Amino acid sequence: MSERVRTVDWGGDHVVLIDQTLLPDRFSLLRVRDVPALCDAIRRLAVRGAPALGVTGALGVALAAVRDDDVAAAARMLVESRPTAVNLAWGVRRVTAVHLSGAEAMLREALAVRDEEIAVERALAVRGADLLHSLCGARLGLRLLTHCNTGALACVESGSALGVIAELHARGAVAEVVACETRPLLQGARLTTWELQQLRIPHALIVDGAAAWLMARGEVDAVIVGADRIAANGDVANKVGTLAHALAARHAGIPFVVAAPESTVDAWTPSGEAIPIEERDAHEVLAWRGHRTAPDGTRARNPAFDVTPAALVSAIVTDRRVIDTARGERPDGDRPGADCSHTDD
Amino acid sequence: MSERVRTVDWGGDHVVLIDQTLLPDRFSLLRVRDVPALCDAIRRLAVRGAPALGVTGALGVALAAVRDDDVAAAARMLVESRPTAVNLAWGVRRVTAVHLSGAEAMLREALAVRDEEIAVERALAVRGADLLHSLCGARLGLRLLTHCNTGALACVESGSALGVIAELHARGAVAEVVACETRPLLQGARLTTWELQQLRIPHALIVDGAAAWLMARGEVDAVIVGADRIAANGDVANKVGTLAHALAARHAGIPFVVAAPESTVDAWTPSGEAIPIEERDAHEVLAWRGHRTAPDGTRARNPAFDVTPAALVSAIVTDRRVIDTARGERPDGDRPGADCSHTDD
Repeated sequence: MSERVRTVDWGGDHVVLIDQTLLPDRFSLLRVRDVPALCDAIRRLAVRGAPALGVTGALGVALAAVRDDDVAAAARMLVESRPTAVNLAWGVRRVTAVHLSGAEAMLREALAVRDEEIAVERALAVRGADLLHSLCGARLGLRLLTHCNTGALACVESGSALGVIAELHARGAVAEVVACETRPLLQGARLTTWELQQLRIPHALIVDGAAAWLMARGEVDAVIVGADRIAANGDVANKVGTLAHALAARHAGIPFVVAAPESTVDAWTPSGEAIPIEERDAHEVLAWRGHRTAPDGTRARNPAFDVTPAALVSAIVTDRRVIDTARGERPDGDRPGADCSHTDD
Repeated sequence: MSERVRTVDWGGDHVVLIDQTLLPDRFSLLRVRDVPALCDAIRRLAVRGAPALGVTGALGVALAAVRDDDVAAAARMLVESRPTAVNLAWGVRRVTAVHLSGAEAMLREALAVRDEEIAVERALAVRGADLLHSLCGARLGLRLLTHCNTGALACVESGSALGVIAELHARGAVAEVVACETRPLLQGARLTTWELQQLRIPHALIVDGAAAWLMARGEVDAVIVGADRIAANGDVANKVGTLAHALAARHAGIPFVVAAPESTVDAWTPSGEAIPIEERDAHEVLAWRGHRTAPDGTRARNPAFDVTPAALVSAIVTDRRVIDTARGERPDGDRPGADCSHTDD
């Protein structure tokens, strides 16, 4: 992945972003030279994805410091540009915390945030590829199915689930990636296919509803997806459509793997039931690029995420560890029933 | 349903069609006065759906006879307007078979084809509604999920699965219908919602990938879908996406019912494995109304149907009977293992 342009980076005296609003039609770098312009890019979703926003927030504060702008005002403006993005605020806070040490120290801290994120992605990719190798019997010619966009465009350099796939490809182990289009916002069709093209990984796009059939026909060796939040018991919240893929993988008898940075594990959320599921605007379901798909007055429901119970997850891989959910292991280390007299292990 | 306009009908001296190419934006009746115009309507998909095409073919031959046109040429032209539509050819054959008895007899035969289709739809609706009542414990306020378009627009007057839903609604038993949009061609978004509006049945549209989550959350009481072909063992070929819904229904512990005319049962196909699955043009996946959703050069796979194994089907209802697949009953009457010493029934 090292030859690839980073989704967000420092350009010497400015922030460089891949302008994701133009993808997949056009690849264009956005060179952002002050914080108001960066906030505009964040609001327009030119940059999106939790890890990418964390790094963007950090670099944004450093940009203000390097320009000798008002750092406190810049930090406020950045956080307010997407108020619900937890990682954005986290990146901003990390760099403002070293404010007293001066602009150079702030830039160093921002670059450390970026480099740590890249290191996390690399560790996750390697660990995930090792896991897939072990689950699929170290076979070559793997046919992998994924959902939504979990690649560099959501992160900085290689991504989560798609980073694992790229690492497997670098090892010569991937025959084909099946990318689900991911309605309603089509991140799979628009972004994942674009990244797979850049990586020169053979791939095919399908509608989300075709995934179960391809698995049942024996045309997929494993499913690998990212996660938005992982509960203490291993339940996984991810882009809507994930649960159906997990059920189909179980039906087909193939591994269903979740790849996400350790920061996605939320030990304070006991189980999936406690994860709030965002209901997004019905308009996303009812129209596509300004064309209505349904009659006027149609009501739609649009849960953005779903929860896959840990029992359907073969394993969770993070940058630090593999959680063997298939054998009852939990992200929080507890093993329910470990004190019972079960004899089945 | 009786106040509704029929999808295809006889207008006294011409064929009347609902022009489905204009839905859901506009409702318009097409009055077709000769066979070339009817063939054009068939080719443009102004009329589609196996039962509707059967009746259209029958009425088309009668139209030629009534106009004193060359009946043999008209029959050929009709069959060739959609060469793979088995029902179209069947309808054409049934009416040409009485050619020697004259135009009046041919029109009588065509109207009999239409009336038999309507009677089949009515019987299926009543039998299906009775079945749902018994599976769901005769509750009111049912929340039903369906896929694709199985309503009047695919048939003549009320449809298959959607006909059952309409009958349940007429009995006051339906609280809400969840309609899956059915990518790639969005028959659920475009046609099913339109029919539900006409029927004044409360409904909500969802993306196909959200169905499993709504079921898992306990927001659906039963799933009811149509079928394109039912094998002798009860495996069901239907619009792609159906298998995922069947798996989700099983996971949620709710009934998964298939409603289809008896003519859909193909006793000569032993199981789902023997059903050929049409792979349609990749373009359907890659674009929507002329807008590409994926980068140039992206490959797509587009199986139009999938096969749900009988083991995942709670019951199959036709116009003539209920096949209790949950208890191992088969459409062809065989009960595999009936000679075994099972004691679980």
